Amino acid sequence: MTGHRIRFCRMSAPTPLCLSNVTLDGIGVGVRCAAGRIVEVGPGVAALPGDEVLDGGGMAVLPGLVNGHTHAAMTLLRGYGDDLPLMEWLQTRIWPAEAALDAHDVYWGTRLAAIEMLRSGTTHFFDMYWHVPAVARAASDTGIRATVSGVFIDAGTDDPHGVRAAALEDLDAVRAAGGTIEASLGPHAVYTVTRDSLEWLAGVATERDVPVHIHLSETSEEVERCVSEHGCTPPALLDAAGLLGPSTLCAHGNWLTAGDLELLADRGATVVTNPVSNLKLATGKVFDYTAARRLGIPVGLGTDGAASNNSLDLLGDVKIFALVNKQAAGDPAVLPASEALEVASGGASPLLGGRCRLGPGDPADLILVRTDGVEMTPSPLPAALVYATSGAAVDTAVVAGRVVMRNREVPGTEEVIAEVRSRAARLRSGT
Amino acid sequence: MTGHRIRFCRMSAPTPLCLSNVTLDGIGVGVRCAAGRIVEVGPGVAALPGDEVLDGGGMAVLPGLVNGHTHAAMTLLRGYGDDLPLMEWLQTRIWPAEAALDAHDVYWGTRLAAIEMLRSGTTHFFDMYWHVPAVARAASDTGIRATVSGVFIDAGTDDPHGVRAAALEDLDAVRAAGGTIEASLGPHAVYTVTRDSLEWLAGVATERDVPVHIHLSETSEEVERCVSEHGCTPPALLDAAGLLGPSTLCAHGNWLTAGDLELLADRGATVVTNPVSNLKLATGKVFDYTAARRLGIPVGLGTDGAASNNSLDLLGDVKIFALVNKQAAGDPAVLPASEALEVASGGASPLLGGRCRLGPGDPADLILVRTDGVEMTPSPLPAALVYATSGAAVDTAVVAGRVVMRNREVPGTEEVIAEVRSRAARLRSGT
Repeated sequence: MTGHRIRFCRMSAPTPLCLSNVTLDGIGVGVRCAAGRIVEVGPGVAALPGDEVLDGGGMAVLPGLVNGHTHAAMTLLRGYGDDLPLMEWLQTRIWPAEAALDAHDVYWGTRLAAIEMLRSGTTHFFDMYWHVPAVARAASDTGIRATVSGVFIDAGTDDPHGVRAAALEDLDAVRAAGGTIEASLGPHAVYTVTRDSLEWLAGVATERDVPVHIHLSETSEEVERCVSEHGCTPPALLDAAGLLGPSTLCAHGNWLTAGDLELLADRGATVVTNPVSNLKLATGKVFDYTAARRLGIPVGLGTDGAASNNSLDLLGDVKIFALVNKQAAGDPAVLPASEALEVASGGASPLLGGRCRLGPGDPADLILVRTDGVEMTPSPLPAALVYATSGAAVDTAVVAGRVVMRNREVPGTEEVIAEVRSRAARLRSGT
Repeated sequence: MTGHRIRFCRMSAPTPLCLSNVTLDGIGVGVRCAAGRIVEVGPGVAALPGDEVLDGGGMAVLPGLVNGHTHAAMTLLRGYGDDLPLMEWLQTRIWPAEAALDAHDVYWGTRLAAIEMLRSGTTHFFDMYWHVPAVARAASDTGIRATVSGVFIDAGTDDPHGVRAAALEDLDAVRAAGGTIEASLGPHAVYTVTRDSLEWLAGVATERDVPVHIHLSETSEEVERCVSEHGCTPPALLDAAGLLGPSTLCAHGNWLTAGDLELLADRGATVVTNPVSNLKLATGKVFDYTAARRLGIPVGLGTDGAASNNSLDLLGDVKIFALVNKQAAGDPAVLPASEALEVASGGASPLLGGRCRLGPGDPADLILVRTDGVEMTPSPLPAALVYATSGAAVDTAVVAGRVVMRNREVPGTEEVIAEVRSRAARLRSGT
């Protein structure tokens, strides 16, 4: 399954779908979807002849969550070298295993990740990884929405033209997927991409009208090195290269300075915070959400890859996101549950969808959540979802008007688990 | 259901139990239990005639977790006033609702908590709350192990003798429960209990041979007030009152000084950290586990009450416990998964059971965990439990040799949910 052999089958438009007997903000409603979008939401909305009907049996309907930064295929490396010092983990575990990954591995690892994300309420993820056509195909086959980028690294390469050509080829391959799959560019970080290529990528992004997904100011070492080599912080370097704008997704942002935050606010770039991964790898600081939101910076929430989290359950991470920011601000009123869930739904960033509510015309990316369980008794939404439970409360997922999970079952799960187990064992044995 | 009307039925000894086809550290074993204790564990262990047999079907067997600090009945107040400033939350929500709680409320709220804890792998909890006979009865009826204390507060009371008499009456009532229920004393904190009563409680604890459960150095205000009123920090005050020893369980410990840690280490007192509650209430600091363990202080993990967490899933909290301490130490190698799980199992404190392994003679408090799910693929234990999943992976719970949950079902759950919903609605309406 190398890039040029990936074939995508365009799926036919889904049958119109009506979710009945669901609750929205505590009120019983119906939700009709057609051609991948919500058509009507409200108390009187009922199925029309020919609709597929899904009885939500008193479950709450919510916008699907948006995982703003992950490396989905890294489920293959989940639990491989936890609790090691950072460089030892990278050098002895992650890099050797990644060097051995082929497109088939990436396909199956991404399939597992997509299933795990659907099971915890994520209907759209922003990915950066190798073998992107395989990532796109896996997402498409699972029925999840994905914005997929490769990993552009050209610092130190012998063949800078080859890196650029491969990036364009990947972009075309992903764009060919269509359906719920979109393409983006993935410059890895300012220390792995040359200044020339940052400028070249800015041109490609504009010309092809695709977002740019980059790790930014994740560690203090990254910032120090950038200042030393380029005389400015990473966001300022991106900006000078023409790469900082409303279509730029900056992952992490732990070590952004006050000046960086002002620049990001001015350019309208999105920061995706990944608090769990950053805490687990002990990056020293976590993105200052409170300061960023005060400046109006668009913000999203990501899990990062399963090798450094080790979960892709955004409803687990949203609690930690809220807690860490309350503690940092010294104020339990900071980042209340409704706001935390809005961020996790992509509602605080136009680039991530910008949806906080369900309304006609919006993509029909929805989840149904059980509210009758032990863990959520007697807490109301959204606090119950943010603080009291995890993704295990999610029962049903709809992406672009298709039911892709019902009763927590995603078709093909057993085969995917078996494939990942066997491939992970091979990667870890070094053979 | 006031205290003196509580009746406990002593349960007969359970039938000997054999867990078969389970895995322990990756090896297939059987576990035989009799008279509430483990008799044999190992690859060749099989059922004897007359044993109840539970086929574990490839699940992993682990010691049950120990929730070292909670107020179980506060499930009634879960999600009631989240994200409010601390004093507004206490004054406008928690205290008025608590003032209206009766023993029946506490019974049902504790029942729900006990079910939630079993469903997430906790088989023993240390509680501090009002209407303790109802707490003890609820725990006993659910089949969970509990060490139960009342809330001793006498500062500002008109009737100090009444408070003491009630404490002794509660102690007797809980001790009468027997079975999996044990009694402890619960001085609320150094700012709510007079110095005289701290000394009196120390005498009672010694005489009756019961543990003492107290909130300690939770907030900076508590420490400052203690220093101002008593000229010493809270642990030093407890020590001067004769109340600091191996049977003392100190909840929180966020603001312990270096000198306090040395004192606690010397006395062998246990600190139970509650990172989720402390982050959510923005206490400013979280207990410094790394420093405490370096000194050999026994440590446990608690959820605190569901009003300030809002979950009782210790497998959710153990991840946050590990992450927060990695970040604080600036080292991802700090508090690895095996150590975090040991703390959550009570294995780092003799007072909390001190069990890290399953061995003959240990209490038969066990859980069976599914390891074949999406979220745990392909991660090994214990990292999978600590980082990749939550309590939802727990399938079966055994307490004192009795199977109290199977296939995530605890008998009576529906009735308990209905009771808590209706009682919580009443408490929140202020009627």
